[in-house]
Amino acid sequence: MARVRPLSGYPEWTPAQRVVESAVIDALKEVFTLHGFAEIETRAVETVERLAGKSEAAKEIYTLTRLNADGDADARLGLHFDLTVPFARYVEEFQNELAFPFKRFQIQKVWRGERPQEGRYREFYQADIDVVGRQSLPAHLDVEVAVVMARALAALPLPGVTMRVNNRRLVEGFYRGVGIDDIAGALRSVDKLDKIGPDGVRAELVEQQVPETAADAILELARISAPDASFVNAVEDLWATTTTVADVADAEAQLREGLAQLVALVQGVNAAVPGTAIADLRIARGLDYYTGSVYETFLDGHEDLGSICSGGRYDSLVAGGGFPGVGMSIGVSRLVSRMLGAGLVEATRAVPTAVLVAVTDEETRAASTAIADALRGRGIATEVAPTAAKFGKQIQHADRRGIPFVWFPGSEGASDEVKDIRSGDQVPADAATWEPPAEDLSPRIVPAD
Amino acid sequence: MARVRPLSGYPEWTPAQRVVESAVIDALKEVFTLHGFAEIETRAVETVERLAGKSEAAKEIYTLTRLNADGDADARLGLHFDLTVPFARYVEEFQNELAFPFKRFQIQKVWRGERPQEGRYREFYQADIDVVGRQSLPAHLDVEVAVVMARALAALPLPGVTMRVNNRRLVEGFYRGVGIDDIAGALRSVDKLDKIGPDGVRAELVEQQVPETAADAILELARISAPDASFVNAVEDLWATTTTVADVADAEAQLREGLAQLVALVQGVNAAVPGTAIADLRIARGLDYYTGSVYETFLDGHEDLGSICSGGRYDSLVAGGGFPGVGMSIGVSRLVSRMLGAGLVEATRAVPTAVLVAVTDEETRAASTAIADALRGRGIATEVAPTAAKFGKQIQHADRRGIPFVWFPGSEGASDEVKDIRSGDQVPADAATWEPPAEDLSPRIVPAD
Repeated sequence: MARVRPLSGYPEWTPAQRVVESAVIDALKEVFTLHGFAEIETRAVETVERLAGKSEAAKEIYTLTRLNADGDADARLGLHFDLTVPFARYVEEFQNELAFPFKRFQIQKVWRGERPQEGRYREFYQADIDVVGRQSLPAHLDVEVAVVMARALAALPLPGVTMRVNNRRLVEGFYRGVGIDDIAGALRSVDKLDKIGPDGVRAELVEQQVPETAADAILELARISAPDASFVNAVEDLWATTTTVADVADAEAQLREGLAQLVALVQGVNAAVPGTAIADLRIARGLDYYTGSVYETFLDGHEDLGSICSGGRYDSLVAGGGFPGVGMSIGVSRLVSRMLGAGLVEATRAVPTAVLVAVTDEETRAASTAIADALRGRGIATEVAPTAAKFGKQIQHADRRGIPFVWFPGSEGASDEVKDIRSGDQVPADAATWEPPAEDLSPRIVPAD
Repeated sequence: MARVRPLSGYPEWTPAQRVVESAVIDALKEVFTLHGFAEIETRAVETVERLAGKSEAAKEIYTLTRLNADGDADARLGLHFDLTVPFARYVEEFQNELAFPFKRFQIQKVWRGERPQEGRYREFYQADIDVVGRQSLPAHLDVEVAVVMARALAALPLPGVTMRVNNRRLVEGFYRGVGIDDIAGALRSVDKLDKIGPDGVRAELVEQQVPETAADAILELARISAPDASFVNAVEDLWATTTTVADVADAEAQLREGLAQLVALVQGVNAAVPGTAIADLRIARGLDYYTGSVYETFLDGHEDLGSICSGGRYDSLVAGGGFPGVGMSIGVSRLVSRMLGAGLVEATRAVPTAVLVAVTDEETRAASTAIADALRGRGIATEVAPTAAKFGKQIQHADRRGIPFVWFPGSEGASDEVKDIRSGDQVPADAATWEPPAEDLSPRIVPAD
């Protein structure tokens, strides 16, 4: 038979790699849960109408067809490409059963029908948290969401991360103050700074009828960054020299509101997880619906990955208005793939099993099973040898599976013994009391060799 | 805005219901893990060619199309409809990286493009375990897999379950002994006993050219059941009076091998989880690929649900041969849906949060956050009140979310206090040492009121 080939864009892990992915997901869940976020799961499908609402993403939707469709009037369905669209629909659908502010986390796979040659993932895990109010939502939740994500990332076996934060009100106030009308258009250009550089952005802005002085002011604003409140002076200085609008009161009020929120955010995150946040006024986030704080997060030394955890504050989760919120999303599969691919981490073993109970002969298999059950009853993952081969073979079997301990049932009144097959140490042991060292109880995630 | 309607066939849970589903999945994982089963996940998609290999299921496949497909030569893909087809492909693809016998569990959603009017699920969780050898696999693993599933189901807050087990070798030997050639055809008819009754099955068998005496013998065999080895005598008696074939040696050897395996299975399961297994010789399982033990499991008092956990022994997981195995699969979503719908269980609360820390005024929010962090640091899920409303309102907020404790920061040297809002009891407390009662630490699954 021809060897089975992997499908491009659909990552799959070996059991040992899945231990890493699973540990990452569990660590995220634990942090989210400790902060009071409830888990939901949404179905994988939405109507195409709802998914395609955002025209840009529409390119990437996988639609579903029943192989033997018989002309029934099915709604046209597609796989969700993120967890925000389904969350918005869920909140709308279940609003009468939810208590607001509603804090939820959601860790699920999403699908994107990307062109295969781009080498992007077509199926991957995202981990999202959002807090959504019904009519309003206090600004301090912008800090809380960022702190929770900073702690979640700190709980993973990663190099440090840097969370680059900005504020749309600040930016919008500033842009209005320098006389820009199409703020969304200007933001989309600034979002391309990394790709096309300041000259490219400037050219795009000028093409959008942005005055050259305003374009320069915008690019100057985007150069400001600081790990503390010191960016405020820089913004104020720039503001003082670049505002061109006659009546700047409204724009300035908006700018100052944004400045205060950004100060609270960068200080709040760094107080909780020191050294994580930087106010970086170039962070734009392309999406139109953000209205306040915006976040991007980079893995130190792996900035080429792009942002591993992004999000922001929005005024309205649903099309009809209402439900303001703030949320962030981790690209789990991309992160895990880098952790594995760059050799940052590995699992100590591919199986949950701590102990293999040897079988002396098939007649006494039940005795070996009883030992295994005694160990399992105390939370120690245990297997019984599949065959009563020579003990050397059974030890080899444990070694091949990565099981650290082999247990030998005592015969004729002799005590049971347990061997650490890594060191070769073998000692008498009682299944009612023996414990493996804590670090051997379950597979652990460790730096790769 | 028009209310959003649920999509038929796509169940979704409220946060409190998701607590139940999540607890079920975690309980299954724990049992599987304790028995040494490693978790894998496979991608949601397979090639349509692979999925459609089983013609019957082909009707139910959802195929994928990129909404804005641009004519690239994508393989034609569909969503998996079970976890066996992807597992077989995974074993084939990763065979050089797996240690055999390979024990895996897999808990994922599957999709079936059922006709909506049938009221069946189109997206649902399955939980599968399998043990697969490379060239051979000892028969005692048939017992182990059934014991693991019996324990997994016993770990759930369910009424009892009854595992009805049979053996294809036994049945095949018997069928050959009474002169039946098309054994698969006869099995498919016997599998319909519940639907069409003994007379219907008999009529189908006769239509298949099965002699009437043989049809009667088959139906007589299907009447035999016992929770212990006592079925052996009944089978032997029937065998003695109904064999019609001249040379029965081969058929009888096959029958006896099956009898011995079935005795070991029913005794083994009942020794591990008393009162669970019944040898029931009518259990046929429609699928052709089973070759030894077959299992179906029914929820006591909810037999109308059909089998909630089924499976069997097969000679070859992959088309090319090799990789014999044995596995079982739980229909998790259907089970959870019944648990919730029949009011068998409910979650004690919809949020993970045990404590809401009140906020006296926005100026002292940081003090409340510090208390929350102290509690979180000791594993107690905690939220901080979203606004510094009057304490009565903050207690109401906790009540609406189902949070059992509200924490009041002390002011001016006074001690903090914590109130159990269910009893109204309020006592002094220190965030560095206070613990909620163990049953309030996390949401629990309890019998519904």
